[in-house]
Amino acid sequence: MRTLSIVHAIAAFVSCTAAQTFQRLGGCPDLGCVFPPDQADFLAGQYFDIRLEVHSPINGSEARVGEPDPNFTFTITKKRGKPIAATKFFKVDEPKLERWDFSWYEDRFAEDADTPSIVNVTSKIYRRVALKEPGEYEATLNYYGSQKTVANWLVRDLPTKRRAKNVILFIGDGMTTNMITAARLIAHKSINGKYMTKMALDKFPVLGHQMTHSMDSFITDSANSATALYSGHKTTVNALNVYVDSSEDPFDDPKFETIAEIFRRHHPHAGIGIVSTAFLADATPAALTSHTSDRGEYDHVISTYYEGLTNYTWTEWNGPDVLLGAGAENFLKSEDAKRDYYDLFAQNDYSVAWNKTALQNAPNDQKLLGVFQTSNLATWLDRNVYQANLLNKTNYPDGSGRDADDLPGLKEMTLKAIDVLHERHSDDGWFIMSEAASVDKQMHTLDYDRALGELLELDDTVRATIEKLKHLGELEDTLVIVTADHGHGFDVTGSVDTKYLEAQDDDRHKRSAVGYYESSGLSQYTTGGPNSLRYSEGVHFPTRWDPRYTLHSGVVAFPDHHENYQVHKDGPRTPALAAQGDKNNYYASYKDAVSGILINGTLPVDAAQGVHSLTDVPVFAQGPCQELFGGVYSSIDIFFNIAECLGLSEGK
Amino acid sequence: MRTLSIVHAIAAFVSCTAAQTFQRLGGCPDLGCVFPPDQADFLAGQYFDIRLEVHSPINGSEARVGEPDPNFTFTITKKRGKPIAATKFFKVDEPKLERWDFSWYEDRFAEDADTPSIVNVTSKIYRRVALKEPGEYEATLNYYGSQKTVANWLVRDLPTKRRAKNVILFIGDGMTTNMITAARLIAHKSINGKYMTKMALDKFPVLGHQMTHSMDSFITDSANSATALYSGHKTTVNALNVYVDSSEDPFDDPKFETIAEIFRRHHPHAGIGIVSTAFLADATPAALTSHTSDRGEYDHVISTYYEGLTNYTWTEWNGPDVLLGAGAENFLKSEDAKRDYYDLFAQNDYSVAWNKTALQNAPNDQKLLGVFQTSNLATWLDRNVYQANLLNKTNYPDGSGRDADDLPGLKEMTLKAIDVLHERHSDDGWFIMSEAASVDKQMHTLDYDRALGELLELDDTVRATIEKLKHLGELEDTLVIVTADHGHGFDVTGSVDTKYLEAQDDDRHKRSAVGYYESSGLSQYTTGGPNSLRYSEGVHFPTRWDPRYTLHSGVVAFPDHHENYQVHKDGPRTPALAAQGDKNNYYASYKDAVSGILINGTLPVDAAQGVHSLTDVPVFAQGPCQELFGGVYSSIDIFFNIAECLGLSEGK
Repeated sequence: MRTLSIVHAIAAFVSCTAAQTFQRLGGCPDLGCVFPPDQADFLAGQYFDIRLEVHSPINGSEARVGEPDPNFTFTITKKRGKPIAATKFFKVDEPKLERWDFSWYEDRFAEDADTPSIVNVTSKIYRRVALKEPGEYEATLNYYGSQKTVANWLVRDLPTKRRAKNVILFIGDGMTTNMITAARLIAHKSINGKYMTKMALDKFPVLGHQMTHSMDSFITDSANSATALYSGHKTTVNALNVYVDSSEDPFDDPKFETIAEIFRRHHPHAGIGIVSTAFLADATPAALTSHTSDRGEYDHVISTYYEGLTNYTWTEWNGPDVLLGAGAENFLKSEDAKRDYYDLFAQNDYSVAWNKTALQNAPNDQKLLGVFQTSNLATWLDRNVYQANLLNKTNYPDGSGRDADDLPGLKEMTLKAIDVLHERHSDDGWFIMSEAASVDKQMHTLDYDRALGELLELDDTVRATIEKLKHLGELEDTLVIVTADHGHGFDVTGSVDTKYLEAQDDDRHKRSAVGYYESSGLSQYTTGGPNSLRYSEGVHFPTRWDPRYTLHSGVVAFPDHHENYQVHKDGPRTPALAAQGDKNNYYASYKDAVSGILINGTLPVDAAQGVHSLTDVPVFAQGPCQELFGGVYSSIDIFFNIAECLGLSEGK
Repeated sequence: MRTLSIVHAIAAFVSCTAAQTFQRLGGCPDLGCVFPPDQADFLAGQYFDIRLEVHSPINGSEARVGEPDPNFTFTITKKRGKPIAATKFFKVDEPKLERWDFSWYEDRFAEDADTPSIVNVTSKIYRRVALKEPGEYEATLNYYGSQKTVANWLVRDLPTKRRAKNVILFIGDGMTTNMITAARLIAHKSINGKYMTKMALDKFPVLGHQMTHSMDSFITDSANSATALYSGHKTTVNALNVYVDSSEDPFDDPKFETIAEIFRRHHPHAGIGIVSTAFLADATPAALTSHTSDRGEYDHVISTYYEGLTNYTWTEWNGPDVLLGAGAENFLKSEDAKRDYYDLFAQNDYSVAWNKTALQNAPNDQKLLGVFQTSNLATWLDRNVYQANLLNKTNYPDGSGRDADDLPGLKEMTLKAIDVLHERHSDDGWFIMSEAASVDKQMHTLDYDRALGELLELDDTVRATIEKLKHLGELEDTLVIVTADHGHGFDVTGSVDTKYLEAQDDDRHKRSAVGYYESSGLSQYTTGGPNSLRYSEGVHFPTRWDPRYTLHSGVVAFPDHHENYQVHKDGPRTPALAAQGDKNNYYASYKDAVSGILINGTLPVDAAQGVHSLTDVPVFAQGPCQELFGGVYSSIDIFFNIAECLGLSEGK
């Protein structure tokens, strides 16, 4: 039966090959759409909504005559059972019929010619249902008389015994194995090809790879991928914990519950911590509590931290215990945000910290909001090496226009989060997500030095976390996971003699500065010198960032840019600039690397930055349930493994 | 004591920072050189040579007055013991003193100006010694009165009980996690972001990462990296199972024993199989038996398959049981090779096969040499999809000038190797190395389609191998490992609408054909169609190689080239051509991708191809000892784990 339904699904999938890249609606195999879609996986008892749509395209390659079916029916069939009307199966009222239309382009030619295809839609949505019994289900939409769209759903049959008291999930946003290799090379000394010290990541007992693909595209963004990691559901680019329907409203899409919501529902006294070096409305932290098809709805994101969902009945949710990061602009009153969230959080018994000193002095027995600057947190490299770049930013988190010059890093934030959660939840345990966000952000702008600095800060944070957990007596009860949400196509192929490159007059001669194979030589980032940087015992970063021989780094796809393979001492890179302000027409910024060579882009000319890549990303695990994380698997298995380890499955 | 000696070594290492990329002699920390160098690891009982050198640079930044010391001394100190003269320690005669000089360039400026630095050398070499007792040793060279070079050596303390009867080591040359991800995407169907089938690699229970760095450069070549995998010793680019000394002779360098040699020495009736899709004199197969500082000494390589070493006393070695691959030119009499190796192998009771039919008909109870064409084996894509590319190659392995048109692939060769070794060595067990060589070779020429085809053939070979071992009742006694020797900086960032790209007039408009994030869409390589390719149950390759929407693939460093993101149906790519035959001046080949965009290179203009990259590469393991292969470690640990699993350590 399972096999048959798979064959059915493949046949349906093949039928829409004409629109593989430009899609009428992702996850919708024919004119009937069921969300959650075919092949969806569920935790037993996880709340979700069901969206049904019937499409009637009025023009384009799929054009048909007539209105979309208003009389479609929907049944659920448990394996070896009979189809049961969804209203009866879930004991809910029949939802009201909705109607709308939407348009899309079938391909780039249609886009250029501005000839959209228009689709009329009938739809219903079932809110807040759950499947409590593990097993296979068929969700069947019947429409246009004899047509059917079948979604095969699997409620995973997981052990229900809780094995971990605490879980800390580190996310190196955009981090790949290739970047870890490069970070190790610049921060750890080696002799004759052998490292004298190890990264914290290198010491993990279990290694896995996870596949990051989206539901309807093989490249994901961070909203979509964080959703998969936290909820077990793959969705569409830009979506946070909803499947994206074809309606315009970014808040009416079918939702599903996240690990934070489920953990708190099962254990009202368990602790939740959210830590990020991004602005806190950004996708990776947002995906723990937000539900919207548009990750750009920042006020929605902050409001869900504060009060959960208000537009529909959903899981009881009273906010994280600890919320630390940047992005003060979304907490202050503004055009977008009618409320002062600092006030609201303070009224809800949070202590509010605006700088590192206040963070470290905040009481451990109180909930804690820490917002340390506007925008993203300054990078490790700027906070620790090129500190002049922190000046004249007018980015103090109170909106006063001062500079934020007393900034914590990922390590200080994460260790404080553990202190608070340990103090407040030593009985019921806690879940922390800690994100090194700017590995991704700096890779986007081809600022490899800053990206690797962020990765090394993550590694140092992991090291310090393990030490702290040991000190607190919690290490053996804590599952520690380090992974990424997607990659960037980064690697290193050798070294560059920057002195030689500078001395040459033209690009073809400058390229002779590149050494590969035996001429790559050894890393000069770890050698000493009069001005070499020094760190505490066990802490590993480059002792210098500007050796004569640097890394020959690159990504596989890029905008037009200049490249001189040197650290940008004056602040983060801007590799491409819009010609006369035309955001559809980026050219290399000459100023970005004056002595560099010109590299013509391979991305569309409207791309100012690099983009995410396909590669599976690594997973490092230690602690209770570590054995679940070995080998190769889907990103959603991270969610199911954490849920299993916390005993959150309601099955049997 | 260990800590102290590490500090000493780091200090020494730092002293030569001026020559990190251009080095006087790799692995030589100061004017005294000891090979095996500092931090070398040994299997207890493994044979090796010791080379000592004392340098006296007569000009350049290290210039000194006087001859190199002819009276240097050399001692071995076991931990907590006293220094013992090497002659006494190893019970060998004092070697005779050698003298030579050599020159090198201190950097690219010196190279441009042709101002070499000259070095006079005194040297000795100790042949075929071994350390049988596990533990730490200091090898100390005393010279110029008070100067010392200390090499810290570790003989690993490993269990000696044999746990695996057989070992098969698959090497995807140049294969990375990124490539595995892309290969899966084009060969395995998915629905809503979830694969309906798995790669054989995805099913392995244990995953690791290995670091591939060379002894004296962070980018390795395949000779050096295969040496590390088979012997536990990291050396220099282009070297096969020797440390590279400064003498000119490519055959006098200090050797060390390989896994094939050690296994045969311990178990004279154990079987050895060598399988590769490369020419058999190529580095990855060669590194099982060859000992030379120059991987280009092809006649040496073939002679070591046939008779082992003849220039010095070394391990008894009477050749592999099975040797299958390509490169007939090195088996035929020629200017380089004075002997007809087909005759010699036949005289040594090998059956000799020149085509797939003969391979499959060869008796399983006889030793087997199979050489199927000149040069490298045609790629899977040309053998199976674009077969017209096999014509007019005059590459039949007998040198007759016919076409080789009855070619086996990696799978047929590997399964036959198992048949022969199982028949001949069912009591004593066997070791096979099977290499998918052209993952690397096709990545070098930016022919991503062909490279991924090779990777998928490797995966299919692994699948079929596991099935065969199960069928033979040998699976539980066989350690199966799949890994790589180094990476290429490959990844995929989206899709390309090739129809749209073709329809645009200029490069900047063509780039709009690239779709990323949600516009990457779904893989069209697995969808059906009237001419779609079909495979047997369980075999997964693309059903079409030329969909309208292809992968937006790239590498991080490249020569000048044109790119249209389409499969090359007329044969493997040649992305760059030498201008007027000048091998120091490569430009994009317009013909290679007529409709494509021009991408200016980031490698020196004398590079016709892409190059190897830094990234750690994956290791997949199953069978006895699989638990040794999890986590992150050095490439040399692959050797030590295999040796441990075969019970080859003589310690205690």
